Amino acid sequence: MQAIVVRPGEPNSIHMRDMADPKMKPDQVAVKMLRVGLCGTDAEINHGLYGKAPDGDEYLILGHENLGVVEEVGKKVKGLKAGDLVVSTVRRPCKVCPNCKAGENDMCSSGQYTERGITRRHGFMAEYYVESPQYLNKIPKAVREFAVLLEPMSVVEKGIDHAFLLQRRLVWKPKLAIVLGGGPVGLLAAAVLRARGLRTVVVGREPKSDLRAQIAMQLGAEYVSVENSSLLDLQKQLGPPDIVIEATGSAKVVFDAMEIIGPNGVLCLLSVTGGSGVNEEPIDRINQLLVLGNQVVFGSVNANPRHFAMGVKDFVTIDKKWPGVMNRLLTNKIPWKDHKSWFTERGTGIKSTLEISD
Amino acid sequence: MQAIVVRPGEPNSIHMRDMADPKMKPDQVAVKMLRVGLCGTDAEINHGLYGKAPDGDEYLILGHENLGVVEEVGKKVKGLKAGDLVVSTVRRPCKVCPNCKAGENDMCSSGQYTERGITRRHGFMAEYYVESPQYLNKIPKAVREFAVLLEPMSVVEKGIDHAFLLQRRLVWKPKLAIVLGGGPVGLLAAAVLRARGLRTVVVGREPKSDLRAQIAMQLGAEYVSVENSSLLDLQKQLGPPDIVIEATGSAKVVFDAMEIIGPNGVLCLLSVTGGSGVNEEPIDRINQLLVLGNQVVFGSVNANPRHFAMGVKDFVTIDKKWPGVMNRLLTNKIPWKDHKSWFTERGTGIKSTLEISD
Repeated sequence: MQAIVVRPGEPNSIHMRDMADPKMKPDQVAVKMLRVGLCGTDAEINHGLYGKAPDGDEYLILGHENLGVVEEVGKKVKGLKAGDLVVSTVRRPCKVCPNCKAGENDMCSSGQYTERGITRRHGFMAEYYVESPQYLNKIPKAVREFAVLLEPMSVVEKGIDHAFLLQRRLVWKPKLAIVLGGGPVGLLAAAVLRARGLRTVVVGREPKSDLRAQIAMQLGAEYVSVENSSLLDLQKQLGPPDIVIEATGSAKVVFDAMEIIGPNGVLCLLSVTGGSGVNEEPIDRINQLLVLGNQVVFGSVNANPRHFAMGVKDFVTIDKKWPGVMNRLLTNKIPWKDHKSWFTERGTGIKSTLEISD
Repeated sequence: MQAIVVRPGEPNSIHMRDMADPKMKPDQVAVKMLRVGLCGTDAEINHGLYGKAPDGDEYLILGHENLGVVEEVGKKVKGLKAGDLVVSTVRRPCKVCPNCKAGENDMCSSGQYTERGITRRHGFMAEYYVESPQYLNKIPKAVREFAVLLEPMSVVEKGIDHAFLLQRRLVWKPKLAIVLGGGPVGLLAAAVLRARGLRTVVVGREPKSDLRAQIAMQLGAEYVSVENSSLLDLQKQLGPPDIVIEATGSAKVVFDAMEIIGPNGVLCLLSVTGGSGVNEEPIDRINQLLVLGNQVVFGSVNANPRHFAMGVKDFVTIDKKWPGVMNRLLTNKIPWKDHKSWFTERGTGIKSTLEISD
């Protein structure tokens, strides 16, 4: 068969190559590829910035956004037959971390996962591939035409899923979503949010006549064409959003987005910015770390009655474990008639108290 | 009785004032104040930057970190008696939002809450106060000496509680915590994290001879005296932290802290930076919004098999609701022999695909 390969680390090494068809095991499926989607990661791999060949190989078959049709199934395979449309997942679990063991390989904490077309596994820019059925998603015929979008769609689903998982910390009934960016990820996010019934506003650089804006509006979303500088104006006009999805690829927008989240709201960062390692701003680096590390930053203010009760309990525990340690925090005991002294000159102690009575 | 009051909005209006003792209702408790803790919020209120008097009053009794002893209980009160030590909570719920209704008034989404000593309710810098028993925490005698720290402790408990609530999104077994700042909040956070069994490293400006460092070490935490610039070096030495608590009051440190979180890790911002409205940097403003808004920012990468399955389901839903809309995303269908064209010239479409077979 033919396949499109790169030599990882070597810029512009992309080329088509003849190779043997992959061998199918009895518990595997052979899939004939229909099409692959192209994204920035493919370009970065071809720029030599990213990507690793499988152990023992000098080249990597590129491609991770995939759609194919089952050509042949192994004897031991159940639930799939020739002619079925399938999309393969990309990441394969490591064998050591608790998240991969729990089936949540997107949260792999060992870093030892592999990824088809990206890291230590061949991808889908080939006439055929073989795979275990557990990694294949059967695709209804009705969505065949655009099912190649399933891999980027899965990234969007994960982001929105995590927003809801994170927000289980409170009673959350989101109503307004703002999606920054009108590219494939932004529009897929708008589609998912609209399917969940949220008022959704897509903010893009293009005019309303652009196809991106047209697609957003067909989804029942609003489309606003703005320069980044007016995100705050937009927020004033729309009210504070419950959820903001950042999918522009611009680190500046990432930080502008932090200024428009509503109270108790959530900002989901989906775009990797910078990445070339050259002329990167600190904000590029921070955004990269947040996205590629699945990290959470949150602000916390105040406390509810439960937290006071937790504090009482912990005080007792702490005082038993480390007797007297908490007392040492109270360094400045001021008679309450002298309260003005603290307000005019704060001193260098740890905690000051006004002593009202004994 | 006597009380320390301010006229909100008027700088340095703090003064002691004679007033009538508060009247206790049959379902309330009268508490004699022992001591109040002082914190930056008190100073800001006296600077006129913050604070509101109760409706109909021209002054606000200051003070929210409190410890008192029950003087008298109303006829209808159960579970409290004269002589009991008590700490009152500070925030009172609004009557409209779902979080306050669920008892989680720290996540109030209406903004209509009140706060004793801060917003529209008198505080605790007074000889006596009255309160409903539901807002009072009974304090064991063993921790009397430092129980005035319960209010700041509750803020720390809430931050760490939310870190764990947020991280229910994955299998999370935190081992390493870094606490930035050796003030009361930082040291209380270190105490809670140590009580939970985490290796805890407190980073402060003071030398190891300082009382802050001594207290950290008494808690079994490590103490590192560093300039902010070496946080990355510290991270290299310790390994990536599972949880970082920011409690320095410096917006610069907030953003440095974003660079040291480990994969799948969480950064909890507890300090309000800036706040004067004068000469604030954008990073001050962003940190303020995050903290005072209880906001979450998270990065998301990749997807697990569940998210692919969610994508298939949503594709079917979306295609039924808005027929044909997804197809329109596929703007550039490139014969796969022409793959190099995309890598050399990306064009302006939305999503490009390589067409491998029909």
